Amino acid sequence: MSTKIFPTAQDAENAFYEALERADLEAMLAVWSEDEDIVCVHPAGQRLAGQAQVRETWRQMFAGGPDMRVQIGQQVVVTSMMVAVHSVHEVISVAGEQQPRPPMVATNVYLRTPSGWRMIAHHASPAPGQPAAGVGAATEDPSAPKILH
Amino acid sequence: MSTKIFPTAQDAENAFYEALERADLEAMLAVWSEDEDIVCVHPAGQRLAGQAQVRETWRQMFAGGPDMRVQIGQQVVVTSMMVAVHSVHEVISVAGEQQPRPPMVATNVYLRTPSGWRMIAHHASPAPGQPAAGVGAATEDPSAPKILH
Repeated sequence: MSTKIFPTAQDAENAFYEALERADLEAMLAVWSEDEDIVCVHPAGQRLAGQAQVRETWRQMFAGGPDMRVQIGQQVVVTSMMVAVHSVHEVISVAGEQQPRPPMVATNVYLRTPSGWRMIAHHASPAPGQPAAGVGAATEDPSAPKILH
Repeated sequence: MSTKIFPTAQDAENAFYEALERADLEAMLAVWSEDEDIVCVHPAGQRLAGQAQVRETWRQMFAGGPDMRVQIGQQVVVTSMMVAVHSVHEVISVAGEQQPRPPMVATNVYLRTPSGWRMIAHHASPAPGQPAAGVGAATEDPSAPKILH
């Protein structure tokens, strides 16, 4: 499908967020693994699994054209030869809205494939207690209330 | 620290949810990688990174003793030689509550290490539109409203 090669997981991650900002479906799908077993969880959304569901969600999401900027911060990377897990905070600013939305935390999982690094899982959810101004800085408030399992 | 060996990622996952139900801190920590780079996101919670934060969250959570049952369903597995990503729905029943809580979706990432399979990331968040009765069955409602990025 796609011949795009990402030499590192970070290259794939950069392409993911660029595609998100540009609402570029082809570029977004080029980031994902071509295997059937891929998983995508949007904030407060159902778990989407497999190529068909993942493609459809991005198609729907990008149908209105580009309307957001995404600021990434507080990245934590777990990496090995064949896999990389990137945990990031996302602050999304939507066109026409005065303030950025509350931060999200995303877990992005990439595999090293014969055709470069590709995303196999994206799981994003609200990250309470993360002031928008704190993105990019270590401003986590350990005293903030936590809702556990 | 721990000498527990999990021969498969599924063994590690089973041990994770057993430890959660038993509020067994030692068993829980035995599931996690001993590397510093581990990430844990509880539903509606802040992102926790590193051994100290992850240990502390489970210590706090288990301080009151066992009080929940966790039913796992709708598992999707992405696996390779060295890494496994398990996406599951969790339905949690808390002692003293009449009904199970609304389902969560969890992304669990395991690495194959010299000491067996270990968890490196756990990200759980609410999974709307997933009726509790649907756990274990393919009852996802594609017409349910989605809140995207």
